Amino acid sequence: MTHVIGLRCVLCGREEPPESGRMVCARCGDDGTLDVEYDLGEARRALTRESLDADRDRSIWRYRALLPVSGGEARLPLRVGGTPLVPAERLARALGLGALHVKDDGRMPSASLKDRASAVAVALAAEAGARAVACASTGNAASSLATLSAAAGMRSVIFLPEAAPLAKLAQLLAHGADLVRVRAGYDTAFDLAARATVEHGFYPRNTGTNPYLSEGKKTVALEIAEDMRGHAPDRVYVGAGDGCIFGSLYKGFREMVAIGLLDRVPALVGVQAEGAAPLARAFVSGGRPEPIEPSTIADSISVGRPRDWAKALRAARASGGAIRTVADAEIIDAVRVLAREAGIFAEPAGAAGFAGLVADRREGRCPEGAAAVVIVTGSGLKDPGAVARFAAAPEPIAPETRAVETRLAELGLA
Amino acid sequence: MTHVIGLRCVLCGREEPPESGRMVCARCGDDGTLDVEYDLGEARRALTRESLDADRDRSIWRYRALLPVSGGEARLPLRVGGTPLVPAERLARALGLGALHVKDDGRMPSASLKDRASAVAVALAAEAGARAVACASTGNAASSLATLSAAAGMRSVIFLPEAAPLAKLAQLLAHGADLVRVRAGYDTAFDLAARATVEHGFYPRNTGTNPYLSEGKKTVALEIAEDMRGHAPDRVYVGAGDGCIFGSLYKGFREMVAIGLLDRVPALVGVQAEGAAPLARAFVSGGRPEPIEPSTIADSISVGRPRDWAKALRAARASGGAIRTVADAEIIDAVRVLAREAGIFAEPAGAAGFAGLVADRREGRCPEGAAAVVIVTGSGLKDPGAVARFAAAPEPIAPETRAVETRLAELGLA
Repeated sequence: MTHVIGLRCVLCGREEPPESGRMVCARCGDDGTLDVEYDLGEARRALTRESLDADRDRSIWRYRALLPVSGGEARLPLRVGGTPLVPAERLARALGLGALHVKDDGRMPSASLKDRASAVAVALAAEAGARAVACASTGNAASSLATLSAAAGMRSVIFLPEAAPLAKLAQLLAHGADLVRVRAGYDTAFDLAARATVEHGFYPRNTGTNPYLSEGKKTVALEIAEDMRGHAPDRVYVGAGDGCIFGSLYKGFREMVAIGLLDRVPALVGVQAEGAAPLARAFVSGGRPEPIEPSTIADSISVGRPRDWAKALRAARASGGAIRTVADAEIIDAVRVLAREAGIFAEPAGAAGFAGLVADRREGRCPEGAAAVVIVTGSGLKDPGAVARFAAAPEPIAPETRAVETRLAELGLA
Repeated sequence: MTHVIGLRCVLCGREEPPESGRMVCARCGDDGTLDVEYDLGEARRALTRESLDADRDRSIWRYRALLPVSGGEARLPLRVGGTPLVPAERLARALGLGALHVKDDGRMPSASLKDRASAVAVALAAEAGARAVACASTGNAASSLATLSAAAGMRSVIFLPEAAPLAKLAQLLAHGADLVRVRAGYDTAFDLAARATVEHGFYPRNTGTNPYLSEGKKTVALEIAEDMRGHAPDRVYVGAGDGCIFGSLYKGFREMVAIGLLDRVPALVGVQAEGAAPLARAFVSGGRPEPIEPSTIADSISVGRPRDWAKALRAARASGGAIRTVADAEIIDAVRVLAREAGIFAEPAGAAGFAGLVADRREGRCPEGAAAVVIVTGSGLKDPGAVARFAAAPEPIAPETRAVETRLAELGLA
C-alpha cells in the first residue's frame, strides 16, 4: 500500500490514474513528464519529527509514506540514502556566508546520487515481476543501476555508447551488468534502448519518461530538510543536465513543507556548464530549451536535449531560484576548493553546484550572510583524471636526508 | 577528559603512563606496540544500549568513552564511521551459512577503513598543536590522511614511493597534501619519513609505532557489535597486511564484551595473500614473522614486514580464530562474487576477507550454518583496473535493431 493517489502532467495538468501504467501524459507525449501525487494527510500522520527520530532505518525507505513503493520487497539490502550533510565552516567564512553545508552523495553505494532513482526503479521492477531493468547511459545512471540490480538479484541491461569512462565502465563490468555496447553516440544508444525496452518488457530506468525516478531523487531534499530540523537554508545549489535531480528537489522540499516538516522551500539554483546550458538559456528566454551539441568536461551534466526541462524550469521559478551557467574552469576550480577546504572530493559535475554558489556570491546574486547548501552528486573517484587539470605529482627526489630537507623547505615545512 | 588510564606493552606487559608521550615500549622498542587501556567502569556507565540508541551522532565519536580523544575539537566535520552492515542473504545461502553480513567500509569519506585511524590521528594532532601530520604510504593510509587533514584545516606530509596507483594519487593531489615523492621503494620512504617526523615535530600517522591508530580502527568492531544488537556473529573475516586492523578488531570486540554490550568475542580470521603471508606463517610456526619480499595484486595488504604482528597474533589466538592465506586468483574471484551477488564493489585487498571465508567453508574450517561477518576495507573505485582480471567490455555492435536483437539473444534476454 502506497499513499499515491494519482499522476498529473506537469505541462497541461491532465491527470492519469496510477493504474493506467502510463509513464508520460497521454496528451503532451514525451514532453509531458508526470508528477506523482500523494495523500499528504496520510503522509503527515505517518511522518513526524518523533517518528523519524525513532526510526533506525537510515535509508530512503524511512520516507516510504512519500514514495511510490509498497511493502518489504522494497527494502534493498544496500543502504541507499542517509548521506552526510557536512558543515563547511572555513568555506562559509571565506565566501561570506552565514552557513554552508555540503550534502555528500559521493558516499552512496555506487558513489553517486543516481542510486536514489535506481533504488526506486529496482523496487518497482521487482514488484512488477520484470525480468530486467534497462537504461541507456555511459555514466552514473548505468553504474548505479548495475550496482543496485546486482544487490537485488535482478538483471540490468545497459545500452552503452562506444566511449565510456574507465571507472564507470569498471563498475558495470564488476557488477555483471548485461551490456549492449553500440558503435554510436549516446542519442542513438538511447533510441535503441527505448525500442528494445518496450519490445522485451524490460522495466525502463529512463530519466524523463519514468516519473518514479524523480520520486527517488527527491529524497535528497527530504534528508536535507530532516537534517536541518525543519529550518530551510536560504539557497540550495546543484548541477543540472537533464534537470531531473534539480526538478526533484523542488518536489521534495514542497512536500516536506506540506506535511509540516519544513518551514519553507529554499531558493533552488540549477547550475549548468556553459557548453551544455539549454536549461539556463530557456530560463532566461522563457521558452522551451533548444537542443544543442553539448561540450563540457563535466560528463554527467553534458546534456544537449534535457529531458526533464519542464520540472527543472518549474523548480527554478516556483522557488524564486534560477538556472545559471559556469565555465569549465570554474567547475575544475570548484573540485579543487571543495577537496582542499572541505575534504570532499567530487567529480566535475558533482562540484558544479558549488561552482554556481561561488559565482553567485561574486556577482551578488547570493546575499552576504545567506545559509546555503550545495549538493555533491558524485565522487571524484568516478573521474580521477580530472585532477590532472589543476595538480600534478611533484618530481621524485633522491632518497636521502638532504634532498628531503630541501623539499620540506620548498613546502615551507623545514 | 578521556577515560584512558594507561598504556601497556603487548609483548612484556610493562606499563607506560600516558603522560610519558612514549609511543612504543621502553623495554621492547619498536616490536613493543602498546595497548591503550581505559577505565571500563566509566565506559560502561557512559555507553549503554539506551544512550547509543538516543545518540544522533552516527560517527565514531559516539564511542568517545572508548577513544583517546577528548572534547569537541575531536569532532571532524566529515562523518567517519557509521558505515552499513549489509545482509547478503543470497551469498549466505550459496555458502551454506546461517547468516552473512558485509561491513562496507568502502563508504568512508576517502573510501577506505583507514579513515578511522586518520580521524583519531588528526584529532590528536590538533589537540597537541602539531602543525602537520606525517606518514609514508602509497595507498589508502595516505589518501585517508590527506582527506581528513584537508577537512580539519591541517597540513599532511606524505612520503610517497615513486610508483603510486592513479586513483589514490589523485586523492592526494586533489586534497592538496604536501608530497615528498622519493625515487625509491616503500621501505626507504618509510625510514626517511620516520626521521623527518621526529626532526620537525610532525604528528606521526604510522601503523605499528602509534598505538592510538588501532583505537580508531577498533571502532569497526564497536559498530558491528552495536548493529548486531549485542549478539556476536560466530566468525569475522578481514584482510591482513601489517595486522593493525585485524589486531584492533580483537580489542574492540573485547571491550564491548567488557562493558556488557556484546555477548562474546567472535572467532577472528585474518586473511593474507599467499605472496605476502608472514603473519599466516608465524601463526602456524609459533614464532615471530620472518620478513619477506611481498608479491600480490592486493596492494593494500602487500606487506613483507608486518609492523603490528604481536597484536595480530594475539587476535587470532585469543579469539579462537586464525590467520590464513588465499591465492591472488581467489581474491580476484572474491571481488567478482561480492560485486555480482551482494552489489558491493571492493578493491582486491578489500575483498580478501571474503576470499578467506569462501576458502574456510570449502575446507571445512567454518562450520555449516555459522553466522559470519566479512569486512570490506576499501572501495573498488580505488583500483578499477583490477576488474580487467575477470571481465572485459564486449565488442561494440552495429547501431541497428537487428544487431541489438542478436546481442540480447546472446545474453538470453531476447
